[in-house]
Amino acid sequence: MDERFRKQIDFILEIDKEKNILRQTHLSGHGRREDDADHAWHLAIMAWLLSEYAEKQIDVAKVMLMVLIHDIVEIDAGDTYAYDAAGKATERERESAAADRIFGLLPEDQGQTLRALWEEFDAYETPEARFAHVCDNFQPLLLNDSNDGGDWKEHGVYRSQVEKRNEKTHTGSEKIWEYMRTILDRNVERGSLLEEQSQ
Amino acid sequence: MDERFRKQIDFILEIDKEKNILRQTHLSGHGRREDDADHAWHLAIMAWLLSEYAEKQIDVAKVMLMVLIHDIVEIDAGDTYAYDAAGKATERERESAAADRIFGLLPEDQGQTLRALWEEFDAYETPEARFAHVCDNFQPLLLNDSNDGGDWKEHGVYRSQVEKRNEKTHTGSEKIWEYMRTILDRNVERGSLLEEQSQ
Repeated sequence: MDERFRKQIDFILEIDKEKNILRQTHLSGHGRREDDADHAWHLAIMAWLLSEYAEKQIDVAKVMLMVLIHDIVEIDAGDTYAYDAAGKATERERESAAADRIFGLLPEDQGQTLRALWEEFDAYETPEARFAHVCDNFQPLLLNDSNDGGDWKEHGVYRSQVEKRNEKTHTGSEKIWEYMRTILDRNVERGSLLEEQSQ
Repeated sequence: MDERFRKQIDFILEIDKEKNILRQTHLSGHGRREDDADHAWHLAIMAWLLSEYAEKQIDVAKVMLMVLIHDIVEIDAGDTYAYDAAGKATERERESAAADRIFGLLPEDQGQTLRALWEEFDAYETPEARFAHVCDNFQPLLLNDSNDGGDWKEHGVYRSQVEKRNEKTHTGSEKIWEYMRTILDRNVERGSLLEEQSQ
């Protein structure tokens, strides 16, 4: 077995661990907590289905690969809940070390390509990164809304926190962000999302 | 909310159910049973990583979308274990009805595209379909081998059954099939895969 193939197989087995990382979002139908690989799978299909709503022309295949690998670093760094301020403060450093190790398992060319794609996602600047973030932020809202906003209720989340997290979402898709705001309205109304910010 | 967008959202929420379908394969590290969405996520990344080993030139993005959606029909039809002969006999009919219903939720253009891609996978003729099947068959072997072949042991699987299921795998990738055969050898040796066919 040659070295290049062995490295590819090692990486494929390593990323299997992403399936053990649980998010705070619950599956629709008041299901179990979603795992990171489930989430990434959903995003890749959403990227393909909803690309017509991207603000700028995007390379859809690039967005799909970007969202498929965007959470691989969580194998080492863990999932940081969107509204966990303390976790967010150290997230970047933990994830960067994880990217070094995990993408470093691959043959250099492929490792560099995936690392660069992850950095591009994180930098939130290109049309592809902006649209990948639209999918990443829209998907848990959809699931949570289908569960009557239970994830927000459980964590006592404020509407202003969700808006802050999504302050750039409209740059990826005005149409989808407009719909996301109707989800926020509905969940404030039903008492699942808090209206006033306490922080 | 316009009709087209509503149909897309309905489909996105519907396919969330794929995450509840459990396969017979266990995650590496003797983990829990893998769900269908986890599996499809893994295949899409494998398709990108291993495309250099495809026998013929392939459109990698097409293979990625194909593997991402190839098990959606199991939302209605359930997962049929590769070595369950009775289940296999009715699988095609159950899956075709499921495809009608689930892809039918989408706007017509997108529903037809995904339905055609699923049919192409199933027909096993194009270079993309052949390579998608390589990924689909290789991934559970990798996980199972990392768990000492426990899934085969649990179901009393014969080497000849795995070979029969993989009779066309070499047409997608000679190199990967060659490596898969070393996995079979190893698991016969360790007693996880049965050597003689009883059927």
